Amino acid sequence: MPNNEYPQPLSGMVVPRFGEVATFMRLPIERDPARLDIALVGVPFDGGTTNRPGARHGPREIRTMSCFMRRVHHVSKVAPYELCRVGDHGDCSVNPIDLHDSLTRIEEFFARLHRAGAAPLTAGGDHLITLPILRAIARERPVGLIHFDAHSDTSDSYFGGEKYTHGTPFRRAIEEGLIRPGKFLQVGLRGQLYAEDDFDFAHKHKVKMITAEEFHAKGMPIFLRQLRAFRNQPVYITLDIDCVDPAYAPGTGTPQVGGFTSIQILNLVRALKGLNIVGCDLVEVSPPFDNGEITSLLAANLLYELLCIL
Amino acid sequence: MPNNEYPQPLSGMVVPRFGEVATFMRLPIERDPARLDIALVGVPFDGGTTNRPGARHGPREIRTMSCFMRRVHHVSKVAPYELCRVGDHGDCSVNPIDLHDSLTRIEEFFARLHRAGAAPLTAGGDHLITLPILRAIARERPVGLIHFDAHSDTSDSYFGGEKYTHGTPFRRAIEEGLIRPGKFLQVGLRGQLYAEDDFDFAHKHKVKMITAEEFHAKGMPIFLRQLRAFRNQPVYITLDIDCVDPAYAPGTGTPQVGGFTSIQILNLVRALKGLNIVGCDLVEVSPPFDNGEITSLLAANLLYELLCIL
Amino acid sequence: MPNNEYPQPLSGMVVPRFGEVATFMRLPIERDPARLDIALVGVPFDGGTTNRPGARHGPREIRTMSCFMRRVHHVSKVAPYELCRVGDHGDCSVNPIDLHDSLTRIEEFFARLHRAGAAPLTAGGDHLITLPILRAIARERPVGLIHFDAHSDTSDSYFGGEKYTHGTPFRRAIEEGLIRPGKFLQVGLRGQLYAEDDFDFAHKHKVKMITAEEFHAKGMPIFLRQLRAFRNQPVYITLDIDCVDPAYAPGTGTPQVGGFTSIQILNLVRALKGLNIVGCDLVEVSPPFDNGEITSLLAANLLYELLCIL
Amino acid sequence: MPNNEYPQPLSGMVVPRFGEVATFMRLPIERDPARLDIALVGVPFDGGTTNRPGARHGPREIRTMSCFMRRVHHVSKVAPYELCRVGDHGDCSVNPIDLHDSLTRIEEFFARLHRAGAAPLTAGGDHLITLPILRAIARERPVGLIHFDAHSDTSDSYFGGEKYTHGTPFRRAIEEGLIRPGKFLQVGLRGQLYAEDDFDFAHKHKVKMITAEEFHAKGMPIFLRQLRAFRNQPVYITLDIDCVDPAYAPGTGTPQVGGFTSIQILNLVRALKGLNIVGCDLVEVSPPFDNGEITSLLAANLLYELLCIL
Amino acid sequence: MPNNEYPQPLSGMVVPRFGEVATFMRLPIERDPARLDIALVGVPFDGGTTNRPGARHGPREIRTMSCFMRRVHHVSKVAPYELCRVGDHGDCSVNPIDLHDSLTRIEEFFARLHRAGAAPLTAGGDHLITLPILRAIARERPVGLIHFDAHSDTSDSYFGGEKYTHGTPFRRAIEEGLIRPGKFLQVGLRGQLYAEDDFDFAHKHKVKMITAEEFHAKGMPIFLRQLRAFRNQPVYITLDIDCVDPAYAPGTGTPQVGGFTSIQILNLVRALKGLNIVGCDLVEVSPPFDNGEITSLLAANLLYELLCIL
Amino acid sequence: MPNNEYPQPLSGMVVPRFGEVATFMRLPIERDPARLDIALVGVPFDGGTTNRPGARHGPREIRTMSCFMRRVHHVSKVAPYELCRVGDHGDCSVNPIDLHDSLTRIEEFFARLHRAGAAPLTAGGDHLITLPILRAIARERPVGLIHFDAHSDTSDSYFGGEKYTHGTPFRRAIEEGLIRPGKFLQVGLRGQLYAEDDFDFAHKHKVKMITAEEFHAKGMPIFLRQLRAFRNQPVYITLDIDCVDPAYAPGTGTPQVGGFTSIQILNLVRALKGLNIVGCDLVEVSPPFDNGEITSLLAANLLYELLCIL
Repeated sequence: MPNNEYPQPLSGMVVPRFGEVATFMRLPIERDPARLDIALVGVPFDGGTTNRPGARHGPREIRTMSCFMRRVHHVSKVAPYELCRVGDHGDCSVNPIDLHDSLTRIEEFFARLHRAGAAPLTAGGDHLITLPILRAIARERPVGLIHFDAHSDTSDSYFGGEKYTHGTPFRRAIEEGLIRPGKFLQVGLRGQLYAEDDFDFAHKHKVKMITAEEFHAKGMPIFLRQLRAFRNQPVYITLDIDCVDPAYAPGTGTPQVGGFTSIQILNLVRALKGLNIVGCDLVEVSPPFDNGEITSLLAANLLYELLCIL
Repeated sequence: MPNNEYPQPLSGMVVPRFGEVATFMRLPIERDPARLDIALVGVPFDGGTTNRPGARHGPREIRTMSCFMRRVHHVSKVAPYELCRVGDHGDCSVNPIDLHDSLTRIEEFFARLHRAGAAPLTAGGDHLITLPILRAIARERPVGLIHFDAHSDTSDSYFGGEKYTHGTPFRRAIEEGLIRPGKFLQVGLRGQLYAEDDFDFAHKHKVKMITAEEFHAKGMPIFLRQLRAFRNQPVYITLDIDCVDPAYAPGTGTPQVGGFTSIQILNLVRALKGLNIVGCDLVEVSPPFDNGEITSLLAANLLYELLCIL
Repeated sequence: MPNNEYPQPLSGMVVPRFGEVATFMRLPIERDPARLDIALVGVPFDGGTTNRPGARHGPREIRTMSCFMRRVHHVSKVAPYELCRVGDHGDCSVNPIDLHDSLTRIEEFFARLHRAGAAPLTAGGDHLITLPILRAIARERPVGLIHFDAHSDTSDSYFGGEKYTHGTPFRRAIEEGLIRPGKFLQVGLRGQLYAEDDFDFAHKHKVKMITAEEFHAKGMPIFLRQLRAFRNQPVYITLDIDCVDPAYAPGTGTPQVGGFTSIQILNLVRALKGLNIVGCDLVEVSPPFDNGEITSLLAANLLYELLCIL
Repeated sequence: MPNNEYPQPLSGMVVPRFGEVATFMRLPIERDPARLDIALVGVPFDGGTTNRPGARHGPREIRTMSCFMRRVHHVSKVAPYELCRVGDHGDCSVNPIDLHDSLTRIEEFFARLHRAGAAPLTAGGDHLITLPILRAIARERPVGLIHFDAHSDTSDSYFGGEKYTHGTPFRRAIEEGLIRPGKFLQVGLRGQLYAEDDFDFAHKHKVKMITAEEFHAKGMPIFLRQLRAFRNQPVYITLDIDCVDPAYAPGTGTPQVGGFTSIQILNLVRALKGLNIVGCDLVEVSPPFDNGEITSLLAANLLYELLCIL
Repeated sequence: MPNNEYPQPLSGMVVPRFGEVATFMRLPIERDPARLDIALVGVPFDGGTTNRPGARHGPREIRTMSCFMRRVHHVSKVAPYELCRVGDHGDCSVNPIDLHDSLTRIEEFFARLHRAGAAPLTAGGDHLITLPILRAIARERPVGLIHFDAHSDTSDSYFGGEKYTHGTPFRRAIEEGLIRPGKFLQVGLRGQLYAEDDFDFAHKHKVKMITAEEFHAKGMPIFLRQLRAFRNQPVYITLDIDCVDPAYAPGTGTPQVGGFTSIQILNLVRALKGLNIVGCDLVEVSPPFDNGEITSLLAANLLYELLCIL
Repeated sequence: MPNNEYPQPLSGMVVPRFGEVATFMRLPIERDPARLDIALVGVPFDGGTTNRPGARHGPREIRTMSCFMRRVHHVSKVAPYELCRVGDHGDCSVNPIDLHDSLTRIEEFFARLHRAGAAPLTAGGDHLITLPILRAIARERPVGLIHFDAHSDTSDSYFGGEKYTHGTPFRRAIEEGLIRPGKFLQVGLRGQLYAEDDFDFAHKHKVKMITAEEFHAKGMPIFLRQLRAFRNQPVYITLDIDCVDPAYAPGTGTPQVGGFTSIQILNLVRALKGLNIVGCDLVEVSPPFDNGEITSLLAANLLYELLCIL
């Protein structure tokens, strides 16, 4: 199939960027996963949120701001729509009242994508959604995981026994064998701890961590060094927008000061180029807490950046 | 016990209204229900919400705006703090991840109040919370129910089987026998229907309805006429802030145009005076969608109005 | 064609209302006008605006808030999607830099709809867009016009000679013979005048006017009386959201105090039922000046009301 | 001096309304009171505020929104700039740190206007500013006072002895003999009382009161009846924006639900036509608490209405 | 007294962080200073403000956002509630109408704390409040002062003689001998000057200054070098939130571009560890000018950071 | 003419900064260009905007925030009002409906300034306004151009032929010979490209570019190196606020993540000192999209910085 038959974004020269139904990147809607190499997907679920809600509104606002995105990456010169078939695959059906039903629905939705060979690029939703996505794509073959976040999300349980919240997905993923041992890197961690042993589980399972403080002090080299371990194997990327500072991304449920600037997170994502990435998500954008859409705009850009490395 | 030993609000002449920890009406915190005749309570739960979330933040913002309230009702001249012991009883512990656990927690919390003889005046939270409150106070002795709302909240289920959402509490309450037959009045209904048979269940169970359109056309008399049936029996009042127009109360999850003005809802609540009211709640205030705190301010005033009739 | 094959809105029981790509009323996108009886259309153009801009963002935000709309009208019991084929026909391509090019594009877009027999239900955009729409559908056969607005929009020119702005469309339409003589009714006029002779042209051309002050004083009867003259002939409805008070619709370019409440405008639109309506538009929603989306929500409801009378 | 030499507002046909330095009504700045019949003045002082501050920012925002005002009143057909010399006289110098210094500065500023024969039309500032204005213009010759407000502002003192706050100006004015006995009308009062005897002083001094509840129930006739007593004598008008409901005027320090709608306050002010008005003020607009400038817009319109009756 | 009897914050596992009455850090309210080692205190006073007001609302909003704080510092591993008795001591009573009365009230409030041996950790309020705090704790024994701010706050007077404003506290403190000579360090200064001699007084009194420009150019080493002079003596820390850039802290009365980022101010505060700190305050948070609560969130974090070094 | 007769800003010691009519820097209005060395001018035009509008409101909001500016530059110690005659020259009359009429009006307005010998310091407006300004001042004698922007603004046309938009001014300026060959430096470029050949025209015409990525990586030295080429010749400075990151300047039409921080842009502008600058503009501030006025505040500061180097 020649490139010029790939789905293309609606040009701002035909309808201005503020016009038309807002789809991811102004791409056509394509419900058939077999016709996509990369499926842009929304998961409007925030039922795993223990703090400020609103991530259920993330996909729609990110779609809106993604209409600002143009075609060719200005640094890497990657033109994603020339290289593969990308489309807006719509939103996963989720049940805002029933967490477990939603976990099942999400897993099935992504399993269907996985079977069709379409790599998912997902806009959340809260961070719990990454667990059923990993179940869908990593159950048979565990993946490396690179995780940008202010929080480790490896708590055991919440509120006296809840095993599935947006604070626990990666503990569950490790327990379920979805992540390759030793191939889990967390970047951007910061913020007070519940207790001194918060990270014992992670350390025991050889999760690598680069705290925000370390990154601010030492910069990209410590990240690039850790990245080497992820070459030549399937890697999944999960990016919680709260890895970024609230000045740059106020619209999130659990904002944490001292985070990345926009250029820092852009450089971090760009450095992933060359990895064998099997899917990405960007989560925890909560539009009701946003200011002037700057969080959604940054999220849309990061989605574009992820698209260019995917 | 003489009146002057009753709990009193902190005066604006001692600490300005913008100062000090914000409690309901600037009243002291009182955790012992036995020391209260009326317990002001928050239920920060919005897990039953199928639309825009955020009602979990309602109690806190209503507390903040309730600091504007002064002591004596300007129309009825009721001075509630002279007449009984009123206090801020804190928030009910709820589990934002687990709907059924929360229903149990809420019921137990209000059952404890009920046993102690304290009438609850509750700030929600979404409308599902009224169900466990009714279970706590009406299981042995059903109550009449006066319900201000844009929506009937008598759906059967949601999303293929969910029986407990903020759209179903009164169907459940009727099924569970918590409401006296024929003693259920809904006021302010409006907005498109899902289907023509939306109200069949309600009609079958003799729920009385005054739509917003009827009220706008005919005014207070039709309400006063319906009220007569509620005299001399225990009545519970539940007020969904979306009965008010979005111009007056934008901060709610499912706003519906064509609603009451502020003076209309004030007059409606004031007309309840003289009933044997056993408890009240005010729900669905969602601060993340509010504008300049006007919804929380109106909610705080309505809470004060409910206090004066309770 | 049996009703059940008509396009239907996506149910909130399948994907919650905050999910999926936002189309008008959650209807399918249908680009072929021949497959539609009523075409929901956006015209994201505000190049005719002499005051605060932003109406170009109207269609997108109205789409978003229209996802709140359910299926059956609660007063008239009309179920529009049972009665005819309704779809989101997308946005007209407009040129934000070139007013005259845009006028041409809009006229051609609506002429194509008109030829296909689809009645347009349009979300603007500023009020200038009504002129090319009328050119498309009323050139051969003039229409009656019912016009809700704070402003008469019958100025001659602006800024020393500009004949095409959002303050002049109806002068042009009268001059071009698009409106049936004596069949032009303006409702809601108010606000200071530029000069005492502002309405001379309108009076000369027998434009009927009901000012906001008259309506507030005398109510629906004066409107119903004027409506009689519009029976049994083609009528176009144009509704400028600034006919409503800024408390109810702050998100508009030229807000004017003293306007309608939400229930007033709802009743006004509902009274149009039974007319032979050939098209409708709702214009001047400017989301950058909105508060908490209440203007877009009201606009979405009014669009639904217009749909039910169309 | 012929009319055509009177100061005229900058036309929107020369520079659009969003352009140029924002003066009241787009009028020229005129620092010489002798050249004005009516002086539009700002008093950016909120040092008398015991609640939410910000009225110091009122004059500037009201200037901005007053640029929307056009020339001729659409109901009365009054064209104020044809009838007298009106100009923006700038702001009174006030000392935000020193209440008593500010009282002196305000009184001197208005005394200078008074001596020059210019009637003041003032944008506040909090309500305390009305006291020094009355001192400047009513010391020799007391005035009748018509006062629109949610609050009586006749408290004796605050915080254990403060005699000068925005809650006390009219008690001081009565004590100082600035108001004609029996010629003080308050309209729009509502909201809880501090104590049952709040209005004893006012009643003792024969202050007439029309509460918001009375007005909502009985309408204009009760106001018109009270107005008769003010004919043929000097009257000062003071309008606290919080007489209006928070839905229409959220931007104020002590918002009170149940207030006037915009058309109600417009009609109330228009009814003052024909009185011998010696000055007016509009106070308590607090832009930091406004939503989308609707309070400032309403205030600008009310200032224009006051101008047309002055 | 064993650690486990110290006051502990309410856990997010018992009531979610958005629930319950908002106290500083979710700690119990403790009115008896003798039962506290560190007293978290609010001073809701902004009567010294010559620019945009609103800092009176600071303590309440900082309390709200401080509910996000968890228990253990993630870098230093300090667990403050294990080490000493910390509680919310409520707000100081202040008189919003009377600056001098407020100065007296604040001094007495803090003197009582000082006598009881409780170190104050204060949320303002405007910067004038630091003067009476220093009078309360440093009159007998002057303190070193480390001062983070965009402004030097060492002006002599304002508006022709006002000696007490938020621009003068440190001139007064130096004159009154409250600060140890040569032990006054200001960090973060920037913004245009009133005149070239603005800093003459400060230079004469050997105030050390690190401007924002110097810090941006040279970083932490220049701060660490200056810090050495403060070892082994009582030091008071005062942090004006406007030392931070408006992108990170828009909610302040006199914002100044070119300020610190969040990680910079976090690192600056963390570097104070090991000093003999006798008290801290954080001032000039003005919630009415905040965006999405990011200023209050940063302030709450900085309060926590100060707690960990105190 | 001695310095002390130069126009001076209104002191905050006479009227507080929130008081009085807001002019640029609180300077007097001066309509006669012959009496000015530097004319502060607004051009409230956004008719060249292809994306989010609102820059027409820029001059007014920048005036408001410029009232925060004090007199003496704190780093360079430049006191501009001592050195030359600076005044607020008002706004250029522009036609919001007619792009070509506006281009003519702007050119004439600036030509008049140019003839009078007053250097313009302009607040936009969108970036198209720079073209007529350059025509007014560089037609006879081309200028060097230093251009801070996220976008190159050297597109050829838009929407099938539009030659004049805010994306094309510098292509036109090069074609018209207004810029000295080889003396055009663009700083801050970033964001996706429309196509790979976006910069071919610029490269062909030897436009120098420093991308945001290059600046973040290498810092001031690469800028200082490029600056050398601009010494000893007339240079015009144009600054699009979107060169700054959306966290610092959200209020713009086409925000682009990864931009400068406030201190970076301040340092960039300060480095221009010593050049022979013939005029400056600051464009694309769109207040409807601003958060808490931080964009306008930064713009006002940058205008002051430009004033100090001019």
